[in-house]
Amino acid sequence: MERLARLAVEFGANVQPGQIVSISTEPGKEELTRAIAEAAYERGARFVDPWWFDPHVKRSRLRHADPETLSFVPEWHGRRLLELGEVGAAAIALSGLVEPNLMSGIDPALLALDMLPQLKESGPLVEGRRVNWTVVPCPTPGWAAQVYPGVAADEALRRLGEAVADICRLSETDPVAAWEARLAQLDAVRERLNALALDSVRFEGPGTDLTVGLLGGSRWTVARFSTLDGVVHTVNLPTEEVFTTPDPARTEGTVTSTKPLFVSNQLITGLRVRFEHGRAVEIEADQGADTLRGLIGRDADASRLGELALVDGDSRVGRSETVFFDTLLDENAASHIALGQAYGLCIEGEEDLAQINESEIHVDFMIGGDDVAVTGMRRDGEVVPLLRGGRWQI
Amino acid sequence: MERLARLAVEFGANVQPGQIVSISTEPGKEELTRAIAEAAYERGARFVDPWWFDPHVKRSRLRHADPETLSFVPEWHGRRLLELGEVGAAAIALSGLVEPNLMSGIDPALLALDMLPQLKESGPLVEGRRVNWTVVPCPTPGWAAQVYPGVAADEALRRLGEAVADICRLSETDPVAAWEARLAQLDAVRERLNALALDSVRFEGPGTDLTVGLLGGSRWTVARFSTLDGVVHTVNLPTEEVFTTPDPARTEGTVTSTKPLFVSNQLITGLRVRFEHGRAVEIEADQGADTLRGLIGRDADASRLGELALVDGDSRVGRSETVFFDTLLDENAASHIALGQAYGLCIEGEEDLAQINESEIHVDFMIGGDDVAVTGMRRDGEVVPLLRGGRWQI
Repeated sequence: MERLARLAVEFGANVQPGQIVSISTEPGKEELTRAIAEAAYERGARFVDPWWFDPHVKRSRLRHADPETLSFVPEWHGRRLLELGEVGAAAIALSGLVEPNLMSGIDPALLALDMLPQLKESGPLVEGRRVNWTVVPCPTPGWAAQVYPGVAADEALRRLGEAVADICRLSETDPVAAWEARLAQLDAVRERLNALALDSVRFEGPGTDLTVGLLGGSRWTVARFSTLDGVVHTVNLPTEEVFTTPDPARTEGTVTSTKPLFVSNQLITGLRVRFEHGRAVEIEADQGADTLRGLIGRDADASRLGELALVDGDSRVGRSETVFFDTLLDENAASHIALGQAYGLCIEGEEDLAQINESEIHVDFMIGGDDVAVTGMRRDGEVVPLLRGGRWQI
Repeated sequence: MERLARLAVEFGANVQPGQIVSISTEPGKEELTRAIAEAAYERGARFVDPWWFDPHVKRSRLRHADPETLSFVPEWHGRRLLELGEVGAAAIALSGLVEPNLMSGIDPALLALDMLPQLKESGPLVEGRRVNWTVVPCPTPGWAAQVYPGVAADEALRRLGEAVADICRLSETDPVAAWEARLAQLDAVRERLNALALDSVRFEGPGTDLTVGLLGGSRWTVARFSTLDGVVHTVNLPTEEVFTTPDPARTEGTVTSTKPLFVSNQLITGLRVRFEHGRAVEIEADQGADTLRGLIGRDADASRLGELALVDGDSRVGRSETVFFDTLLDENAASHIALGQAYGLCIEGEEDLAQINESEIHVDFMIGGDDVAVTGMRRDGEVVPLLRGGRWQI
């Protein structure tokens, strides 16, 4: 926990002396939260400000409150986020559920109304580039039980801890050097992808033939950002992806997810989505289809894509061959797309920026794998293989 | 826990349908926090907003941060409190420490700089009378171990739970009726005290001869308030006191505390304070004097009184003959005074209001008991016995 905390503070968020440091956390994640606070204060933070969200309280709300009120969030939560930007704070969020089955039995339509702890201000906060931030996984016993069912509780937690240590490269002698090396690889791929000037990307595999159109201003990006003041930070640990913002109007075809996804505290397996003119028009799943159907009804853009990400077979998450039921990890296992809110920072040019997805949801799902071929169509019409058998072809 | 939660929601704060409900809590108080959230949503709350404060994070701050920064609090915490008033929220705070010895080894001078989770905006919030609020005790294993040292952990927690149930009258068939009866008694005493038009109150007992001057506008009050909108709420559960705001310039003599007090996570025992012209000029104690000395140096008014409260021998806290190391309970065991911030709502008249204590601290300490005689001096010079042997004489 202490090494993970140091990585989050010193490398991920790259906390600067004198900064306020927000930690988005939950009851049940005390150990890592406190280790992060300790590391941040040791590094000279001015104030560490944990923001604790309790899903049990949310469950009471979903069970008893008037559905009409479920979208309501007191103003101060969103404004706190915007003010983190105004004061130039650092922010660290902890992924990983404490009680994965807590929301079972709750109507998915209600879950789609109450998006907390997600706040709509988090998009503008990221776009504003005033906050150096990161998201890191926090192993918990409940999460471990879900990842390693049938394994004794202590052993499951130990295994999850080891998996996270491996995936976050904490098992390396010099984790920061290992991350610098991987990020340099991803950055080189990013440059080559941008040089290709792609018009669209096609995924072909079992149950999948999907074409995702790009905007002229779509720029491939890695999860290493810089604030306007030049503080370089790695926004996801782990990160294995090169991603961009697609044209929300040009997704066509059918896609089958290659991993389960876990959203609104609900598991969705065997997901199949058909897109027409950019919109998800059919959603089927072995389990949990209603949850996603509820979410894409939330607003006008919720059924359109907001992200396209490519992940190669060197991903440590992918190589672990483990389903983590956690987007931060699972999205870094394989190429993926996301319904909902797009990153403006992947777009060059005001005109294209005005077109990107502005939904309040953002739901990643994994569609890549060794048996999914990824091919680029250049604006000049040339067809370029991008990934074959999980290996870059460019 | 569920009955305590219902008492807090339905009687203490008297939560109204449609209200936002703030819960000031800590990691380690999940069970009561969640029971309160459940009860509040069942009662029709619009949004339950727990505000979790983690003293472990505070400890890291006190150990590592530049002392110059320790008074800093991000703006949004205080503004959230003020906005609870603007929107007419309900607020429930949970007393009782999770880890009583957490701050051992921390320099008391530093503890006096970082007052969190106390916020200076809580005074104006109360004065504004827009929020219906209450404070209730939350039994925790750590707190139980402190109250019942040498008792097995489970048994200690069970005993603390039983003591709290008795003191909060949850052991009665109809706790609300029991509270209505006790509050009616206290209210009758309040009226008689106000009718006496006292100029000062004198405490005489072992190690104590203290006279506390009152302002012309000082009004005796019970801990049952009404918002400007007429929502009646009981601000402390338990409450056994009738209290007022004294003249901060007219405290004279010496007082010996009759119970230990627990402040800034530090125990203070055998406290003796000498006042001159309203100011605490000498502070001695068997243990913890430095903590209080640090606190009274915080601001200009911190060494002057801001509260005077009388408690009779019928107090269930007093009758339990237990030291709880928790101000909410211990202050309701015996008559007490407080250094620091005064309640403006105990004052009639703008001129007197301008004189009351505006410190940022508020430290209660217990000075009453069966062997402490309390006597009133009326403005017309008449001397009136108020409490003898713990019984009202009026």
